[in-house]
Order: sequence, then structure tokens, then C-alpha cells
Amino acid sequence: MLNVNENYSKLPGNYLFAEIAKRVAAFKAEQPEKSLIPLGIGDTTRPLSPSVVAAMHKAVDEMGVKESYRGYGPDYGYSFLREAIRDKAYLPLGVELSIDEIFVSDGAKSDCGNIGDIFGINNVVAVCDPVYPVYVDTNVMSGRAGDFDGTRWTDILYMPCTEANGFLPELPVRTPDIIYLCFPNNPTGASATKPQLKLWVDYALKNGAVILFDAAYEAYITEEGIPHSIYEIEGAKECAIEFRSFSKTAGFTGNRCAYTVVPQALKLGGASLNKLWGRRQSTKFNGVAYVIQRAAEAVYTEQGMKEAREIINYYMNNARVIRDGLKNAGLTVYGGVNAPYIWIKTPNGADSWSFFDRLLRQANVVTTPGAGFGPEGEGFIRLTGFGDAELTKLAVERVIGIL
Amino acid sequence: MLNVNENYSKLPGNYLFAEIAKRVAAFKAEQPEKSLIPLGIGDTTRPLSPSVVAAMHKAVDEMGVKESYRGYGPDYGYSFLREAIRDKAYLPLGVELSIDEIFVSDGAKSDCGNIGDIFGINNVVAVCDPVYPVYVDTNVMSGRAGDFDGTRWTDILYMPCTEANGFLPELPVRTPDIIYLCFPNNPTGASATKPQLKLWVDYALKNGAVILFDAAYEAYITEEGIPHSIYEIEGAKECAIEFRSFSKTAGFTGNRCAYTVVPQALKLGGASLNKLWGRRQSTKFNGVAYVIQRAAEAVYTEQGMKEAREIINYYMNNARVIRDGLKNAGLTVYGGVNAPYIWIKTPNGADSWSFFDRLLRQANVVTTPGAGFGPEGEGFIRLTGFGDAELTKLAVERVIGIL
Repeated sequence: MLNVNENYSKLPGNYLFAEIAKRVAAFKAEQPEKSLIPLGIGDTTRPLSPSVVAAMHKAVDEMGVKESYRGYGPDYGYSFLREAIRDKAYLPLGVELSIDEIFVSDGAKSDCGNIGDIFGINNVVAVCDPVYPVYVDTNVMSGRAGDFDGTRWTDILYMPCTEANGFLPELPVRTPDIIYLCFPNNPTGASATKPQLKLWVDYALKNGAVILFDAAYEAYITEEGIPHSIYEIEGAKECAIEFRSFSKTAGFTGNRCAYTVVPQALKLGGASLNKLWGRRQSTKFNGVAYVIQRAAEAVYTEQGMKEAREIINYYMNNARVIRDGLKNAGLTVYGGVNAPYIWIKTPNGADSWSFFDRLLRQANVVTTPGAGFGPEGEGFIRLTGFGDAELTKLAVERVIGIL
Repeated sequence: MLNVNENYSKLPGNYLFAEIAKRVAAFKAEQPEKSLIPLGIGDTTRPLSPSVVAAMHKAVDEMGVKESYRGYGPDYGYSFLREAIRDKAYLPLGVELSIDEIFVSDGAKSDCGNIGDIFGINNVVAVCDPVYPVYVDTNVMSGRAGDFDGTRWTDILYMPCTEANGFLPELPVRTPDIIYLCFPNNPTGASATKPQLKLWVDYALKNGAVILFDAAYEAYITEEGIPHSIYEIEGAKECAIEFRSFSKTAGFTGNRCAYTVVPQALKLGGASLNKLWGRRQSTKFNGVAYVIQRAAEAVYTEQGMKEAREIINYYMNNARVIRDGLKNAGLTVYGGVNAPYIWIKTPNGADSWSFFDRLLRQANVVTTPGAGFGPEGEGFIRLTGFGDAELTKLAVERVIGIL
């Protein structure tokens, strides 16, 4: 008699974005004449750049001709893309990688979710609070989270990221084995300096822990001195895996391409994590579509990089409009400088869902309630710069109008 | 201190296709003037069809314009594709599905590998022998396989598929909870009739087991009366998950698109497997690229289906050339009628790897040794119809020449 993975039954039924969609749908049904502006969404809205489009057309044509048709690609990605990542994404940072340390995939969400496969079940996991829900949910599914006490998972170490610590977690009291870090941060928009990241690298090295570093938003860093990769920190290759994505750097949310770096020097628990991840991927994954890998390669051409930069600037200008507008209107505002996320304190101590509802119903603006990212997200909402510029301005005016 | 998933260390180091590549490379280094013909490979060689190419160009253009750009797609696939699958792949078989039973993904290999996530670790797994290695390896990784005794995994039930039983497994002596079946079969090329499949459906229903049915090669069925889907069997919706792929039906090995059907009626172990798989995919997967889903949709247009059929006929003609040629030369040959795979008994009781080496060195033809698919594959080699027609003919002549 089959038994299912019992851990799944522990997951709360209401997923954050499903609950938002439900409330939005209810409001639309009630007041269909109102036009809502989405300002909380983490999805990109600008089209693929001309360089990317041209590369995809060329690749499609190649696939339509016998002589240049490509069947199964290498499980870990074509060399042309892995070399471009090595040379254009890392070398300029002073980080030297070999291409066998770079694993191309269909998304950072997949990789962040699947990476748990290679670790034992009894490791202690530490996450920032608030946090991207995938880190927590996938550990619930694998049985590392314990039970949900209504607020937190009993076996997960939560590292509070609050106004008091500038949204930078402090070293946990109990020692974790797996540490999830995301900088620039989703949802708070906080970034970490080299000395701040070095603390974590030193801590992980000392304790034999692995850092799972989500750098999906590194392209949004505008300030000097903020590391774009954890490998800019000495010793990180011995303790950290880094996740990166083309989703937010080149508008690939609908194209599905990302990559994960697992250094050869990363040997923990008596094993090479590079070999383990390689085995995982070659057994449960079959590579990314050729056309998509050519699209990603085009992002690294001179013209492609210029175009990607323009898109990022567009979104960061939106972030500035939100940040400055709401700050001037008297709200307490964080993020939006090195990240496309703006983290806003609800006025008068309102809880996140109440403020979400007020913005939805009175300003007709859709946001993301901070409480959905963890207990310490309570009292905040997340806005993003990924919208249309005109609509973003209008949304900010509407929000200000109801304050 | 981090500990890794210890099950990974149990996996034998030499993966079948890696060992083949090693022997081929050694031979090439030794005799670089020889031109080798690959006849064992499971990869497609015909280009994408004109309908698919046109649909991809159109989708690329849409992605390059703000008004038609698409960011994150639905986790389970766009409705346009799920509806096409429902209406064009299943309805003609008399199988009625709703689109929420169809999950679009990046590959049947991914889905076959990841499906284990939703099951408990203590289920007993049954596999055919010989078998597609991914079923076994992924269960080793999750801890369901026990230990490798040099030939078999101690906790896996092997169902021998031999000449004696026509390569159709018999019901196992011990009762499994998870039963992997693949028809038309890789590697033996055997197919199952409705009464034969009904035995399995009835058995699973009686024992509360789930059948994981790999139908990746259903489009290669040429004979009447061979079911294309397990759901053609009464009761299968209550006990079976079906995996299908565009890889071999439309040359998508380099495009990465597949789908898995998990019926709403499939409730085992006290849970809805549809809900569990939905949760798995929405948490660890983020959908398939828009351009690729439009490509898959094009396969179901009238013209697209005609073009796909031509490609399949091309490969099946190769299969016939191999089958007839080697049969006439006195070899014992199976498969190649409802499957692109031909399963050949080695002459004079040679073991698979010896015959592989002989064909490589004397005929300069690359095959796949049956022993790589499991103990019962010993004494066989696998050939495929996926090559170029002229080269396939030449390879058959070369093989006959050394017999």
C-alpha cells in the first residue's frame, strides 16, 4: 500500500501569492470598474532586448535545418554559455572559475528547491526572516523543518532581519549546517558589504556549514563596495554555493534560464558537492533548450550587456520613484538602492494584511504583505520596481492620496 | 557540521553512457582515421519541422515587444498547450482529461526523476529488468533502493523481461507500492496490449499501488490494439501517473518539453497525488519557456501533426532497415515494430560489452550494451532508428560484414 511523503501535509494550504490572487479576484468581482495597478509583483514587464531576440531567431533557424540541428545538449549547459558566464559574469569581479563549476539550469527557483537533494535530512537549516518562501517550503517537504507551530517551523533557525539590525541577520545562537543568504535581498531590498559577508564566510568555514547564496538580484547593485558574488570573499569557494539567474537581469522570467556555481574546492561532509550536484542534475535534469541558451549567451555580448543595463535602469528608476515618493509622503522606506525591492513600514502600526487590503480597496494598488515572507515581515509591505514606469508613478500618487 | 545525502555515495561510479563515451574516445584516439556510425544513441537527428520553427519565430517576436511580452508563465503550463494536449493527444483515444490533470514540464526525465519527491521513503519499488536507469538511480538517491550487491539493489523488486516472457514482466512475488512500467519499452522495444496492461491496472488497484507509466514512445506504435495511454484501460485513473514527452514525438530533445498526467481520481495513501505533484512543481519548478510551449502547441496543428508523423516514419523506416537487415543476416532481433528501439541478441552467447567492443572495433558502429540497462540485459545490445537513413543502411551493412 503506497504511502505519500507525509511532510507535504504539513505545508500550510494558503500560499502567499495564492492568497493575494484570491483577495484581488474578490475585489475585482465586487468593483469591476476599478483598474488595479500591480506594484507588488516580482515579475518583469519589459520585452526581451533586440540582441536576445536576434540570437533566438538565429538559433530557431539552426534547429530547423538538419546540418545545424541540436538534440540533447550537455546536462550542465553548452560550453559557449558556461564560458560566457565564466568570462563575463565572474572574471570582471576577480573571481576565477572553471566551466565545470558552472551548472546551467531552467531557473534559480528550481535550483534553490532541488539543491536539498544532495544534503542529508538531519542538517540544521538557518534562514533569514523575512525570507523567500521556497527555501523554507522545500525544507519542509524534505523533512528538515520539523512542525509548524502556527508562526514558525520548530527545527528551522530563523535569523531576524529587522529595522534594528538594518535587515542584516546576526550569527545564530545555535550552529546551523545549511545557511540560506540572499543579497541583494528579496524581500527587504537590503544589501551586504564585503566585511558583512566575510563574517558569514568565516563563520561557515569555522563550523563546517554550507552557505546557499542567492545572488539573483546582483545586477541591481548600484553602490560601490557591495559584492556581486559571494566568491569575492576569501574562502567562499570552500563553503558556498551561488545561485544566479537571467530572470531579473535580462527579463528571462518567461525564458527560463539560470545557473548555479558549485566550486571544486567545496568539500564538506566528506564529499565533493560539485560531484554530488553534477550527479543530481545528470540524473534528474536534461539541460536547457538550445534556443534559450543562445538567448542567454547574447546577454553577454557588448550590445546585449548595454541593452540589459537599460532594462535594469528602467526598473531601478521605478524603484527610485516609489522610494522617494513614499518617503516624501512620510512613510518609512527601505531598499530600492541596490535592489528592485522596496520594503515599507505600514503606517500607524497596521498589520501587513490590513494595509494590503487598504491599498487594494482605497488606492487600487496591489502590493505584497510582508507577513507572507515570515513573522518578522509583519508590519511591512513589499513593492517592486518591475512595473510600467507611467503606472508606477500613478500608483505612487494613489498611495500617497490615501495616506 | 554539514552531512551530505549518503545515498549518493552508493551509486556506482560508471554511468552507462559515460563508459560508452570513454571506450569510443579511446578507440578514436587509437584509430583516428576510422569514421564511426552511432547506432545506439537515443537522440533525435531530424530538424524541427517547419510548423514548429514558424511558431517559435512568432513567439520570439512576441517576447520582443512590450505589448505581447510574457514573464512568468503558469507553473503547470499555459492553458493553450494543456488544452491542445487534452484535445489532440488524449480525446482521440477516448480518454477525457481536464487540464488541471496535465502538468507541462521541461522533460520526462525530470518528471520521472522528481516524482519520487511526493512518495514516502519506505515504499517498495518494482522495475522492469532491463530498465531505463533513471528510475533506479533516483530511487537510490532517495534511499528506497537499499544496497548494491554488485548486480542488483537489495530493496528493489526486479521484474525480469526476457525472451521467455516476450519482454513483458510478470506480476512480482512480493507486492510493490510503486511500479514503473514503460511501453513501448526502452530498451527492448516491446509493447503491451490492452489485456496485458489491464492485468497491471487491476493488480495496482487491488494492492493500493501506483503505476508510473512512461509513454514517451507511444507515437511509435504502428500496430492496432496497442494502447497509446494507460488511461485507455479502465480503472487506470485511480492508480496511474503517465509521463509523455515531445522529445521523441517531435524532435524536441534539444527543445525540452514534456508533460505528466496525474488524474484527480488518483487518491492513494490518503492523499490526492494531483495536489501533491502540483505542490511539488509550484515550489521547485517555474514552468517552461513561453517560446517552447508555443513550439509544442504547433505540433498539434493539422500541419504540425503531419510533419511530426513524417519524422516518426523516417525513424521507423530506419528501425525496419536495422531489424530486417540483421534478422536476414541470422541474428535474433526484437522490437522495432511499435518502438524505435531494436533489441538484439548477441551471437554465440557473447556478453554485451564484448559484442559492443567488437562492433566498435571491427564494424566501427557504436551500440548500447544491454547489460547497462540491468542484469537481464546481459547478452543483448540496443540499436535505435534515430540516426541518418543513409548512415543507418551503411552501419547495418558493416555489422553484417563482420558476423
